[in-house]
Amino acid sequence: MRVGVFDSGIGGLTVVKSLLEHQLFEELIYFGDTARVPYGSKDKNTIIRYAIEAVEFFKNFELDLIIVACNSVSAYALFEMRESATCPVIGVVDAGVLATSNSLDKKASNILVIGTHATINSQAYERGLEKLGFSNIQTKATPLFVPLVEEEIVEGAILEETLKHYFNNVQTPDALILGCTHFPLIRDALSTYFGEKTKLIHSGEAIVEQLEKEFTFTEKYSHPKLKFFASENPEALRKIAQKWLYE
Amino acid sequence: MRVGVFDSGIGGLTVVKSLLEHQLFEELIYFGDTARVPYGSKDKNTIIRYAIEAVEFFKNFELDLIIVACNSVSAYALFEMRESATCPVIGVVDAGVLATSNSLDKKASNILVIGTHATINSQAYERGLEKLGFSNIQTKATPLFVPLVEEEIVEGAILEETLKHYFNNVQTPDALILGCTHFPLIRDALSTYFGEKTKLIHSGEAIVEQLEKEFTFTEKYSHPKLKFFASENPEALRKIAQKWLYE
Repeated sequence: MRVGVFDSGIGGLTVVKSLLEHQLFEELIYFGDTARVPYGSKDKNTIIRYAIEAVEFFKNFELDLIIVACNSVSAYALFEMRESATCPVIGVVDAGVLATSNSLDKKASNILVIGTHATINSQAYERGLEKLGFSNIQTKATPLFVPLVEEEIVEGAILEETLKHYFNNVQTPDALILGCTHFPLIRDALSTYFGEKTKLIHSGEAIVEQLEKEFTFTEKYSHPKLKFFASENPEALRKIAQKWLYE
Repeated sequence: MRVGVFDSGIGGLTVVKSLLEHQLFEELIYFGDTARVPYGSKDKNTIIRYAIEAVEFFKNFELDLIIVACNSVSAYALFEMRESATCPVIGVVDAGVLATSNSLDKKASNILVIGTHATINSQAYERGLEKLGFSNIQTKATPLFVPLVEEEIVEGAILEETLKHYFNNVQTPDALILGCTHFPLIRDALSTYFGEKTKLIHSGEAIVEQLEKEFTFTEKYSHPKLKFFASENPEALRKIAQKWLYE
């Protein structure tokens, strides 16, 4: 199977990492819209427009599947992408909702969703979780985590103050949905802050869980073909991919 | 005179504020490229491409002057904009260099320039300052200040830790060039951190200084016509303009 992975920038590489660990695909084509990143602070209509352009780009590759690794796009533009695409399109929001549902008691569990402004404002996670029977859901936009990760600040005083700033008045959740692909990179800090009892829901692992449930994978591909495209400076993206995926 | 002010997003409003305080223009047309903001983390060629598109947009308005309020654009794309434009184009980098030169002793003074990655990597401020005879110049990319300002965190523990993170090993400067239009909004915190002896160079005031030197303004306009355009969600920009300019 040949899969396309779309993200607004580099964050989707955390999803690629999960896909590679599970050796699901023969060929993987990544597209990061680095010339217009970030999407998480942008408008719904803009995000939809950019997402449809990404589908057009992927039409060059005869894909079997498109994975939307960006939470903001998954939250706002999944249906529009499906309308334009000629293959299935799945996104990290639905995957995260399903993964939460598979691993937690719906009545007893208190879920906290964090993400960019766009993802949180969309209420996409809330709607999905409520449909599946969850009722104790808190959400919190935590946009500062994105530039912190991009500046490689994944521990230390600034991050600790930012955690306090966002979570001071938040009840410790049973599950924390990492609703932005940058957040797995501060997984340790989030785990330390909330403690071991809080289960972290990771978009990459959630996508793998959904894929293994909905599609049939007969072979394992330990050396898939990888191609990285970006709307600006693809070389920079390839360097970061090398670092995040293999180091 | 009818002036166009261009910025990657909302930061250029700090320059507009200075222009309005000095009542220099009869009509002011602001364009913020909010659908693709920020530019400060982007590539030189992308910035140039977007800047030329902004010039094209301004051709709808028969402008007498274009002011580039964005430091990253001023650093990378001023010549390309001049080539495309049919009116003069001036930018905040040159203005900041001139303002520094007008107010400080070149031999004795130690200058610190802060800005986004793009602005600092361009070395545009350094080159300008060196041409005018400064030799003691430090530069520091401080990109996190941008999202902090956008999240309205202009004081408190996160900002204090971020100041320490960036300036812990930096010598107290005689002048601090605020090489990003977001930074005037954390002016107080920067002044407190470095102390009163450090003169802050503000892009908006620097542009006014350059304008008053190079152009002839015969009238004052206390109620100029203002028009705000944005590549996405102009309503949001107009609301922020209302807040930043008048509250």
